[in-house]
Formats: sequence, structure tokens, C-alpha cells
Amino acid sequence: MNLYLNGRFMPLEEGRVSVEDRGFQFGDGVYEVVRVYRGKPFRLEPHLRRLEQSCRGIEMGLPEPLERIAGVCRRLVEGHTEAQIYLQVTRGVAPRLHTFPKDAPPTFLAYSRPVTPPAPDRVYRLKVVMDDRWGRCHLKVICLLPNLLAKQKASEAGCDEGLFVRDDGFVTEGASSNAFFVRGGVLWTHPSGPRILNGVTRETVLEVAAACGVAVRQEALRLPDALAADEAFVTGTLAEIAPVVAIDGRPVGTGTPGPVTLGIQSAFRDLTRRECP
Amino acid sequence: MNLYLNGRFMPLEEGRVSVEDRGFQFGDGVYEVVRVYRGKPFRLEPHLRRLEQSCRGIEMGLPEPLERIAGVCRRLVEGHTEAQIYLQVTRGVAPRLHTFPKDAPPTFLAYSRPVTPPAPDRVYRLKVVMDDRWGRCHLKVICLLPNLLAKQKASEAGCDEGLFVRDDGFVTEGASSNAFFVRGGVLWTHPSGPRILNGVTRETVLEVAAACGVAVRQEALRLPDALAADEAFVTGTLAEIAPVVAIDGRPVGTGTPGPVTLGIQSAFRDLTRRECP
Repeated sequence: MNLYLNGRFMPLEEGRVSVEDRGFQFGDGVYEVVRVYRGKPFRLEPHLRRLEQSCRGIEMGLPEPLERIAGVCRRLVEGHTEAQIYLQVTRGVAPRLHTFPKDAPPTFLAYSRPVTPPAPDRVYRLKVVMDDRWGRCHLKVICLLPNLLAKQKASEAGCDEGLFVRDDGFVTEGASSNAFFVRGGVLWTHPSGPRILNGVTRETVLEVAAACGVAVRQEALRLPDALAADEAFVTGTLAEIAPVVAIDGRPVGTGTPGPVTLGIQSAFRDLTRRECP
Repeated sequence: MNLYLNGRFMPLEEGRVSVEDRGFQFGDGVYEVVRVYRGKPFRLEPHLRRLEQSCRGIEMGLPEPLERIAGVCRRLVEGHTEAQIYLQVTRGVAPRLHTFPKDAPPTFLAYSRPVTPPAPDRVYRLKVVMDDRWGRCHLKVICLLPNLLAKQKASEAGCDEGLFVRDDGFVTEGASSNAFFVRGGVLWTHPSGPRILNGVTRETVLEVAAACGVAVRQEALRLPDALAADEAFVTGTLAEIAPVVAIDGRPVGTGTPGPVTLGIQSAFRDLTRRECP
């Protein structure tokens, strides 16, 4: 019973929604992915707070109070050790019309899945892709086609992730991750705001960097400056801290994970062990 | 039996898809809406050709050959007079990963619904909304959240449609329609390209305008020039030709449908009668 759908627990394979669900017809919904370490959800509260913000951002109510959703998450991970929880809320089922339906209750689902943790020596190669997404990338909405196309393009080029660059030349983030660059010992990342999805892992890295005494600049970098960085890494709930060794086939720094990246990666793992013992 | 879903006909109410359908989790799909007049689909071929283009635009195969899809459409409208056919294709069901699944067959559905034709004296009021959509608006994809939010904003302001204006001041199109403006007897509309969805009705209007001897300029207008137009109308498969009498509460021209608009509206209706007798 790893799926919760509109009030009922069931096996994920049995989860079905109407073809008139606005999530299916319009991409009219929001989502979250939560990582579970040693059976305990990591930073569940920030994820649920962001779910609430995403709902508000598309003018939709929460399907259930946050405490109830937290209870659903805890029940879904019973018996799991390393896992993820996927949550999704859509504006419900109604005959297809762009305007919001008046009486449709939201569709709410959450499910858990086992996760294989990244290998300790896993590294990422990035491919630069044009960032032509909409103007509200801070909302964690299910309209993800630009991200899918970017990720696929990267994959077909033999890379692990797409690196979004806007037509003004500034790097924003990865297709499903936030991007960090180390230049002269200082950690650079795009400021939060409508151009990026402010990841829970991104926020955690900023916290970890401060604790490690690494100086941070939240400022957008132009692509040539990003390419000239000493180190780079991308962050995500499932990717965690992924050292970047190449961008468009060119090595980043020495072409191996650098000391700042490895320090933050190690401090991040310690933090997950402390918070999810 | 007004729904066709992955090879089977069934009542629309019974149509269900997996919660792991990429249409539901990612907005990873495309769609079409076809109008049926007097039991006959209007301009079915251009709609199906565009469906094929949309599939190609997101690097997805067609679910069935176009002739088979046309056959499904004809069967769905049996017994209908004034109706619409909605078609949708998604990249199928697979465990949630951004990269395309290798072996998932696409999800394909089509359904018909009765339509109430617009009243002869129906007019539209528009509300200007910021166009912050992605850079590939020419693809008819189901990631429609920006359009939904625009339409809802218009509706809450007592208007019938949102009019997208980019931050460079140029008018692009409506939230679910194309926009036309008449200035000194010349019909203006945004050129086709990545900034707009080139509607089948838009193309039909260009054809009708040529037949009526109305000069056309496919060129973007700045908002002040659009507001100063003598006439305006928006077009869509279900909206047909909707005269615009006000934008943001200010009357367009005399505040009543103008002669060019009414002429094109009338010629469009004649065309639908000729092609769907």
C-alpha cells in the first residue's frame, strides 16, 4: 500500500485518475519530492511549506491540512529505509474549461518508492541547454515539458544533466537541480526568485556552506565565468550533491571533484545522518 | 461511448489513466480541439497535421496513423450535430524520470462533447495579462498553466478572455485564442512563429480575409496601437470569431462590433456551412 490517493491507501499500480483531471489535461498542479534516509523523511517541514506556497502560487487550496499530509508521508514510508516520497496536488476533475472549476475538490496523491543512493564516486557531466521557460520558475508546478526536453537533450549527448542558460547569457539552474560554482574559494549560485526553483537541498547547502566557513555569493554567473570555475556541483533531493566534472565536454577545473565540493558533500551527508539517525 | 482511450471505446466518465502517466505527472503531451458542425468535423485534416507537428515538436511518435485517428473522430461524432472533439496524446506510463521512457507506448484519447454555438450577438471583453510563457508557444502542448492563470485573471475581472502582452510591450495572442486588430481597414495579427499558437481558425480567417478583399499585415502590434484599433476580434475553434468591444474596460473603436469583423464573421460562417453542409 505505497500510494495514498484522495483519502485511500492502495498499491501504486492501482492508482488511476480521470482523463478529465486538470493535472492530466492542463498540467494544472504542483508537486514535491522528499528524500527518506534510514526510514525518516529529511526536511519534511520545508517541503510541505513549499507545497503550500506552490498551491498558493497557482491560487489553489491545500487538499488537506499540512499535519495530515505529514501523517500520510510517515505512514507511506513504514518499512522503507532509503526511499523517496512523491506528492502531487491538482485542481481536480471538471469538464475541460480554462477557468477554475467552482466545486471540484483537488486531487491529492502521495506515494513512496525505494531509492538507490548515489554511488560515492558518482560525478555529473552537464550539457548547456537554452533556458526558455516561463517567468515563474520558482513555483514547483507539474508543467515540466521544458525541463524534460532539456534533460533528454543532455542524456542524448551522453550527459547527466542539462544546464539552463538564458538568452542573456546567464546560467540559471539545472533541468532538475540547482547549480553551484566555486571561484577562488567562493561559492556562487543564482539568487532565489522567479528564474529558479529554490530547492530544499539548495537551501540546505547554503546552511552547510555557512557552517563550513565557505563564503557564498547568490548572484547569477555568465556562462563563460561558469565554465572557468574551479569547481561546480548541482543539487537536488535525489541527486543530493553531485560534483560536476565537465560542461559541454570541457573539464571543470581539474576535471575531478574539488575540495570545496567534497567538503560540502561530506558535511551534507553528516547533516542527513544527524537529522535522520 | 463518447471516449476512445488506447484502442477502446467507452463512456467518458469511465476514462481513467495511471497516476504515473507522464501527461499527469509532467504535462508531457499534446492536444487538439476540433469543431463539429452539423455532424461533420470542420478542417479535420489541418488539425490532425498539427497534432503530428506537435508530437514531432516534443520528440514523440504519433500513437496511431492519422487515417486511423480520423476514423476514430468520425465514429465519435456519430449522432452528434454541434459538437467538439478533444484529442490528447501523452508520452505514456513509466516510473517518474525526466528522460523519455524507452518502451512506453503513448497514451492516446479522443472524446466528443456537445457544443452550444455562440449566440449571434456574443461579444468579448478582454483583460491585458503579462505574457511570461515559455519560448515555444507554437507547440500545442498540455502544459497550459500560464494560459489557465491568464484566463482566470480575466474572468475574475469580469472579462471573457486574457490578452497576452510581453514585457517588450507587444501583444501576442489571447489566453486560448488568436487576436486580430483592424486599423484603417487593414487587418493586423501577430505573425506565426514561436510566440503564438497558430490556430486553425486563425489560418481560416487569413483565407477568408483574402477572399473578402481585406488587406492583412502579419506583424506584432504594441499595446497602445492595439488599444487604438478601430476594431478587434479573437478567434478559436470553439469561440469562432468573437468581436472584442473592450480591452481593460476601455471601448475598442465604437464599442460595438465593426464592419470588418462582422464581414469576416459572416464569411467564416458561410465557409463552415459550405464545408460542413
